[in-house]
Amino acid sequence: MLNEERYFDSNPAVRKIAKELYDKVKNLPIVSPHGHVDPKLFAQNKPFPDPTELFIIPDHYIYRMLYSQGYSLEELGIPTIDGSPVENDGRKIWQIFADNFYLYSGTPTGAWLTQEFEEVFGIDEKLNGKNAQKVYDQMLEKLQSPEFLPRTLFEKFNIEVLSTTDAASDNLEYHKQIKDSGWTGNIIPTFRPDAVVNILADNWKEEIQKLSSVENVDISDYKTFVKVIESRREYFKKMGAVATDQGVLSPYTHKLSESEADAIFQRALKGMATGDDEKKFIGNMLMEMARMSSEDGLVMQIHPGVLRNHNEEIFKKFGLDKGGDIPIQTEYTYNMHELLNAFGNHPNFKVIVFTLDETTYARELAPLAGHYPAMKLGPAWWFNDSIQGMRRFREMTTETAGFYNTVGFNDDTRAFLSIPARHDLARRVDCNFLARQVSEHIIDIEDAHNISYQLANGLVKKAYNL
Amino acid sequence: MLNEERYFDSNPAVRKIAKELYDKVKNLPIVSPHGHVDPKLFAQNKPFPDPTELFIIPDHYIYRMLYSQGYSLEELGIPTIDGSPVENDGRKIWQIFADNFYLYSGTPTGAWLTQEFEEVFGIDEKLNGKNAQKVYDQMLEKLQSPEFLPRTLFEKFNIEVLSTTDAASDNLEYHKQIKDSGWTGNIIPTFRPDAVVNILADNWKEEIQKLSSVENVDISDYKTFVKVIESRREYFKKMGAVATDQGVLSPYTHKLSESEADAIFQRALKGMATGDDEKKFIGNMLMEMARMSSEDGLVMQIHPGVLRNHNEEIFKKFGLDKGGDIPIQTEYTYNMHELLNAFGNHPNFKVIVFTLDETTYARELAPLAGHYPAMKLGPAWWFNDSIQGMRRFREMTTETAGFYNTVGFNDDTRAFLSIPARHDLARRVDCNFLARQVSEHIIDIEDAHNISYQLANGLVKKAYNL
Amino acid sequence: MLNEERYFDSNPAVRKIAKELYDKVKNLPIVSPHGHVDPKLFAQNKPFPDPTELFIIPDHYIYRMLYSQGYSLEELGIPTIDGSPVENDGRKIWQIFADNFYLYSGTPTGAWLTQEFEEVFGIDEKLNGKNAQKVYDQMLEKLQSPEFLPRTLFEKFNIEVLSTTDAASDNLEYHKQIKDSGWTGNIIPTFRPDAVVNILADNWKEEIQKLSSVENVDISDYKTFVKVIESRREYFKKMGAVATDQGVLSPYTHKLSESEADAIFQRALKGMATGDDEKKFIGNMLMEMARMSSEDGLVMQIHPGVLRNHNEEIFKKFGLDKGGDIPIQTEYTYNMHELLNAFGNHPNFKVIVFTLDETTYARELAPLAGHYPAMKLGPAWWFNDSIQGMRRFREMTTETAGFYNTVGFNDDTRAFLSIPARHDLARRVDCNFLARQVSEHIIDIEDAHNISYQLANGLVKKAYNL
Repeated sequence: MLNEERYFDSNPAVRKIAKELYDKVKNLPIVSPHGHVDPKLFAQNKPFPDPTELFIIPDHYIYRMLYSQGYSLEELGIPTIDGSPVENDGRKIWQIFADNFYLYSGTPTGAWLTQEFEEVFGIDEKLNGKNAQKVYDQMLEKLQSPEFLPRTLFEKFNIEVLSTTDAASDNLEYHKQIKDSGWTGNIIPTFRPDAVVNILADNWKEEIQKLSSVENVDISDYKTFVKVIESRREYFKKMGAVATDQGVLSPYTHKLSESEADAIFQRALKGMATGDDEKKFIGNMLMEMARMSSEDGLVMQIHPGVLRNHNEEIFKKFGLDKGGDIPIQTEYTYNMHELLNAFGNHPNFKVIVFTLDETTYARELAPLAGHYPAMKLGPAWWFNDSIQGMRRFREMTTETAGFYNTVGFNDDTRAFLSIPARHDLARRVDCNFLARQVSEHIIDIEDAHNISYQLANGLVKKAYNL
Repeated sequence: MLNEERYFDSNPAVRKIAKELYDKVKNLPIVSPHGHVDPKLFAQNKPFPDPTELFIIPDHYIYRMLYSQGYSLEELGIPTIDGSPVENDGRKIWQIFADNFYLYSGTPTGAWLTQEFEEVFGIDEKLNGKNAQKVYDQMLEKLQSPEFLPRTLFEKFNIEVLSTTDAASDNLEYHKQIKDSGWTGNIIPTFRPDAVVNILADNWKEEIQKLSSVENVDISDYKTFVKVIESRREYFKKMGAVATDQGVLSPYTHKLSESEADAIFQRALKGMATGDDEKKFIGNMLMEMARMSSEDGLVMQIHPGVLRNHNEEIFKKFGLDKGGDIPIQTEYTYNMHELLNAFGNHPNFKVIVFTLDETTYARELAPLAGHYPAMKLGPAWWFNDSIQGMRRFREMTTETAGFYNTVGFNDDTRAFLSIPARHDLARRVDCNFLARQVSEHIIDIEDAHNISYQLANGLVKKAYNL
Repeated sequence: MLNEERYFDSNPAVRKIAKELYDKVKNLPIVSPHGHVDPKLFAQNKPFPDPTELFIIPDHYIYRMLYSQGYSLEELGIPTIDGSPVENDGRKIWQIFADNFYLYSGTPTGAWLTQEFEEVFGIDEKLNGKNAQKVYDQMLEKLQSPEFLPRTLFEKFNIEVLSTTDAASDNLEYHKQIKDSGWTGNIIPTFRPDAVVNILADNWKEEIQKLSSVENVDISDYKTFVKVIESRREYFKKMGAVATDQGVLSPYTHKLSESEADAIFQRALKGMATGDDEKKFIGNMLMEMARMSSEDGLVMQIHPGVLRNHNEEIFKKFGLDKGGDIPIQTEYTYNMHELLNAFGNHPNFKVIVFTLDETTYARELAPLAGHYPAMKLGPAWWFNDSIQGMRRFREMTTETAGFYNTVGFNDDTRAFLSIPARHDLARRVDCNFLARQVSEHIIDIEDAHNISYQLANGLVKKAYNL
């Protein structure tokens, strides 16, 4: 089912060059500097559960499409917060998924799944309602074999480094277990302080308490909070981290005076902080995190512009990350002005910026990254991590920022089995972009080979100091 | 003049597949679920007037281009509000149009006209200054023949359903006449309450009076107003309507308390409503209309984001719809939050959302439609109802929303004769999009055939419950 | 190195037509109606300095990329404001540039430079670290030959008209010298009043004094200021100017009463004007300039949407135009409403509007230019003056505004030697766009030939009354 020349232009002049470029990079090791795979997987190295538990229930990329077509999350087996019952027959859920697999036509989810099914599981027919149970059985059998243990797959997938994403208060227990086990898979944490920075979140005080307890410090003022953050970063760095990450509604940055910041912190502790307080506090923490990065060398990542939990009914019943996160317009030129003025020229600072608002690629992000030495462009993200999405990213950033102010590919996934398919797709799309440029005599084949290597492996290692 | 393979990629690998797909759907009946053709045309079934009266004078898509190049609307015969004289020699106006027909190169208007001239009128040369009067004569002769009566053309065009757009106060007299005539052409109304909802419009009170009189109720408060709207919807539904439509400046939605809504309504009756009142009132009426749709099953359509009558001099002299309506930035994630939270998960509710702000395709609309079961994406609209515009629509929505959260094509036209050309162009562009995906092994040919059928006929009937 | 078919689609069906179209327009004279070449070059007609002084030091398009990759502006020889020392060994700077020439892969700067090196200097190898000094020597030799004097190159480049950009207070001394010299190169000024309109700029009062002194009038109130502006425009027009230009943060337009305007002017003279005052004053001056254009016939140009000097450290050390100007979101529908209502229907007024916010192409600018007779669309500007950028411009404007509401190409450059390469690239991209349309049967070859001539030469002369 998988055509060797998939995602390449059908124009033979382009396709031939794309294939030539791709053949040189397709087997390069995978560097995954930003993702959400659970480190527990590799600490415990237990068999994956059945196909439904593996593919559908944990992956909102997949079930959001079924939900949009009228299937309830209960029918799809998504666990409720209050434990009220949902479908627990994996085969029934799989049947719905297979009956509706045609919905994924033309989507990246469809492309990744097709490749996983064929390359990882050896399934050689298109999933549909008729073969649903047979395919389920074939997969189930594989999943129980030793070749499908997480560590074995990790090695088979040829992953050079895999970054996880970890809360500020995480003690990185699973990372320690992996290291202690003597297994050599290179799995490193990433410091993500969102839960302790979003002062209006329901569980913020709990998160501060966790942070207090993990550091054995009573965090009762802003100054202590900042010190604890610095200390946690140090710990993460010692555990192998090379980067931090923040998901923010807006990339607004502005340093508060210590007294202003503390006043907000005190109001937050009393449950009296306002929306404006939170915006200011987050804008201030972006400045603090940039300052810390300029000191400890952890690479800063910013993922802005998503209104989380848009569908409140779903959020209340099923919790976070259930497919209801929706992008908003995002502005970088003004919002990042203060951060870039303070640290954008700093030789020890790097900030990788992402967006879901493609209008900013050519208008704001490429001009900023094509000037400030500290700023690099993260790859096409989330909804735009797709064939057309990546094409648009290259078309709208290259002419102003060049290739060398970008940082290679991020799979950004919690679906471990999809990692090879995602990187393969990205390499194909990048090689095809370069092939088109070669065929139009915009760049020459020698440069294209250099760049395709950089996009697959070189730039990501440079950007993340790997 | 019309090449059989027009609008397909010239790359032979794509073109061959596009043609194969198109050949299977080109003769499917036309379903036109949203448009502005006057039902009077079919009630009276009189011959169309001359070419100038048919093509130019009623169609601001056409004369706006001539106006932009320095021809006055008076020269083009557009009637003035005060009746002050304008050119009334159709041949002179036609000559200007023909002299300038090259201006339409590369525009959808040019493509539609070329197809209408050739396929409907049998004109086999490109219109220009030299052949202007000859072509005029050829058309005039055809227009006077019985084959060119509206009902005959309707049948020839193979139209399965044609929706008109009708004011809330309309008694649907022409629709009744059509039904009563025994003619079987399926022409159905659509309920559009803009005139009674836009409380600051000059003629709002008149419109409320019309509404009062058609329902025999004195509409002196908000509660009565809402009841009358419900009653009118019921009447429209009885007359065959399957949908409502609202044109709004912003898709802002927020439910007011009944007393707030009534206070605004009272101020409006006294001519004392403010801009903010109107915004709130419209946002509230979107909520009310959604609620009614969830009850009566009429499909809700929202067309936001146009600043009407930008050119005030033209508006004062010639009135509405004279080519001076200009799009603005539009925001959906926040604006539709309340409506989607209230009704987006409702099994009996459907809302079809349109935009003139293409930046929202990938950023907001596809993510929303790829999650909420009630929301579907209307096709590329108005200025974007064009070859490149439709390509961008598919490129920017498919990967996140898939094909099956879209609703086929809307011609949205008042130019009856252009309907076949518009649907044909849309089918060609969609088949070509699919062919490109097949040729790049993104989807397979079997899926492409299924999808091309859905885009031409299946999805529109499902979306509008036809 | 330069392929004859560069920038054309590699699909043979398109390439063949593109070449046919391009062959007819490639040798047409260059019309450059908007740029920043220094007229002193042609007044003095002295040899150009060495390659580093010619290509790198004056061109922020080039050194911003090196800066983004970690080279300091000091290392690159960019002069400081306070005269503190910077690298002055041109060969060292050239070596850095050559070592990093691969960074420009896929950028328009790379494309222009490659063409200049080969066509103007006869360099037939790709610049790199190894051949850096040899290439430097070859260039240096050429630069000292009489064939490389500015006037000789101007004639060789086949430039029909070259517009410079000149401050309101400029006495146009170099333009006079050129005219008086008897040399027939057609070099004309453009009136740019930004320095006397931006009332918050550090040197605004100085600029007003210069203006006072050049006109021998004491500019102490708004009324006098306006009269002086009118008088300067008259002088520029006498000196050959056909256009004005304004660079503004926002295209906001609103006429103030004379007393309001004067109150702001008085506050500005006292150094007490606010940000809001400046915004209002500029919005008012756009109205005044439009009014003057409707009277004296100078074509108005508006270049909005750039936040200048984003990097304050660089600005303080090195001054304006050092690569730190970053675009912002721009809005035209509301902002230009008053100007277009006042003058958009005026037969003696023309306004050419530019943007760095491509989201406005299809949404706002094409609909406006496709309606108002006075408004035309300037070509893809600055960061978007590039292969992909120009493609997007045509794809997003043509269907609504057509080709004939655009104005040909602007090189907008201060790099005189890049002018032929820039126009050549633009002609190639436009011909390829047309070829694609011909190959898809959207336009026919006859129209394509007419349009390609218009885009290369006809429209620009019509738009700028040349």
